[in-house]
Amino acid sequence: MQTITCGTGRSYDIIVGRDIIDKSGELIRKVSQAKRAVIISDTNVAPIYADRVAGSLYSAGFEPARACFKAGEKSKNLNIISEFYSIFSDAGITRDDIIIALGGGVTGDMAGFAAATWLRGVDFVQIPTSLLAQVDSSVGGKTGVDLPVGKNLVGAFWQPSLVICDIDTLKTLPEKYFTDGMAEIIKYGCILSKSLFEKLENFEINSILEDVISECISLKVDVVEKDERESDRRRLLNFGHTIGHAIEKLQKYEGLTHGQAVAVGMAYITKAGEIAGVTAPDTYARLVNLLQQYSLPIEVKGITNKQLCTAAMNDKKCTGNSINLVLLKEIGCAFIERMGFAEFEGFIGL
Amino acid sequence: MQTITCGTGRSYDIIVGRDIIDKSGELIRKVSQAKRAVIISDTNVAPIYADRVAGSLYSAGFEPARACFKAGEKSKNLNIISEFYSIFSDAGITRDDIIIALGGGVTGDMAGFAAATWLRGVDFVQIPTSLLAQVDSSVGGKTGVDLPVGKNLVGAFWQPSLVICDIDTLKTLPEKYFTDGMAEIIKYGCILSKSLFEKLENFEINSILEDVISECISLKVDVVEKDERESDRRRLLNFGHTIGHAIEKLQKYEGLTHGQAVAVGMAYITKAGEIAGVTAPDTYARLVNLLQQYSLPIEVKGITNKQLCTAAMNDKKCTGNSINLVLLKEIGCAFIERMGFAEFEGFIGL
Repeated sequence: MQTITCGTGRSYDIIVGRDIIDKSGELIRKVSQAKRAVIISDTNVAPIYADRVAGSLYSAGFEPARACFKAGEKSKNLNIISEFYSIFSDAGITRDDIIIALGGGVTGDMAGFAAATWLRGVDFVQIPTSLLAQVDSSVGGKTGVDLPVGKNLVGAFWQPSLVICDIDTLKTLPEKYFTDGMAEIIKYGCILSKSLFEKLENFEINSILEDVISECISLKVDVVEKDERESDRRRLLNFGHTIGHAIEKLQKYEGLTHGQAVAVGMAYITKAGEIAGVTAPDTYARLVNLLQQYSLPIEVKGITNKQLCTAAMNDKKCTGNSINLVLLKEIGCAFIERMGFAEFEGFIGL
Repeated sequence: MQTITCGTGRSYDIIVGRDIIDKSGELIRKVSQAKRAVIISDTNVAPIYADRVAGSLYSAGFEPARACFKAGEKSKNLNIISEFYSIFSDAGITRDDIIIALGGGVTGDMAGFAAATWLRGVDFVQIPTSLLAQVDSSVGGKTGVDLPVGKNLVGAFWQPSLVICDIDTLKTLPEKYFTDGMAEIIKYGCILSKSLFEKLENFEINSILEDVISECISLKVDVVEKDERESDRRRLLNFGHTIGHAIEKLQKYEGLTHGQAVAVGMAYITKAGEIAGVTAPDTYARLVNLLQQYSLPIEVKGITNKQLCTAAMNDKKCTGNSINLVLLKEIGCAFIERMGFAEFEGFIGL
């Protein structure tokens, strides 16, 4: 069991280990004097883990209530958040009580947003059960929901009181979701750690999983500690996401998964970087090899560069008429280039 | 024109003066590099002031869009917030743009919450046009919306970038809303300033209005600076509100106005304090005189003490099985007493 401390504002611990989900009650009791708790999870995760977490909470003296929503990004909307509010009200959740997100990124985003806004903010704990949530969304305090016109348009920055990453929960994770998380792990290697990238090139992932997850979390903690409210350094984490989000949007979130789209985005932007001479030679080839090693795609069919450009330039991250692009200098080292829309079109070959 | 600076987290100015609404564009330009702005106001305020604010914003180089909702507390719900989000999306509001709340407390609460949650937080400016909003809700960063099961159950702490209080806007305020604000002004005198209380006893309000508003704002700033996230000192501002909210709730927000309910709450709790011997003799009589001087009620018909108790104990501010009650030691000096529910019932004479 490893503990990483994230020191943004009110600091909190991220605990990484095996078979710790049944200890969640006692772990949470160390950070909360709450009487009541609400466990939020989806229809995939609740049947497997909600009873275990509820039992553990009960043993630690909490009164656990539950909220369960239909699994999938389509549930990530304000109507479901309203349902959570009703459950909080029925359960009598006060400012001293606690919300627990049990599941993947969608669950964490929604439970976090509901916690951030219930009574102007109550404590919440993340128990991420997907690889992507463990290495990415459960750390950093980003919460949010989608609107019909776009993803994550509504949200808040709200830090958890504790994050419990039980590696064993990944055993019940379908293969395609595991692959999804691998894209983000490869991203961390690309932008922040050459040694992580090389580890991924040279070892079978299951033999190094706990260390890799801890390392990714430490890297993310390091970034968000320096820049809690996403302005500069934190933007590095968007590597591959400008194009990735554009792909997801153009496919109406029914084509590539998030991880697959990010994989294509990383490949795409790294190729463009090499052509423009800002990314070291051979970076693209190594990235492509690693992505393919984990069955991740490097290109997408049926979408033109022009469409990608337009979608990317409509992203909420664009301020005014320019776009912040994350590029690799080389493996393990990224930088941000602010480009006007015309320059961006040229860069990706329009 | 007076400027009061509030130093919570990111500090901001509250400007108090006459005929300054037409300068709002240039005043806002000093704190914002935004390209776009959305003016949020209701059907009472928009026809009188929205054009003037929009014109001023336009002159200062902003592109102003507008959102207008039906006046009244009934609009303070998540559906209207969703409509604001659509308008933000259509107007292309990015993280660098700005939201402007033009109106009373409901407008400020809603615009603030929408700003707090759009793209995880964009800047907003308050232009309060009611006395209550000028002395109370526009300072302190509390934002929120109501749910069917209760008021202000959903919200966020989100500080404005600037507050512009134009005293002249009060000329268009209906008398009953002016009276509403007077209850809060009297509250400040009760809990924090004997000299303010005495000024209100001895002068006609219109002759001292600008100074009184500035003084109330300074008193509130002083409280929230010391305690941004409502735990101790800030709770003093709830004087009269425990009973006041209970009355509003029992009357389904269709009986007394907020100010009237707070007036009754202050009278009620001060009388109980005197009977219990914790409040100085004659405090109740002076308070009653002053409330009546401003046509505010001191009691409410058709509600029993038992009903008040039950409603108060169901308030979101109750944690566990106790209630934090704000009591007066004497005029100008308040304190907080945490009472168990049984003790509370005894205190108010059940």
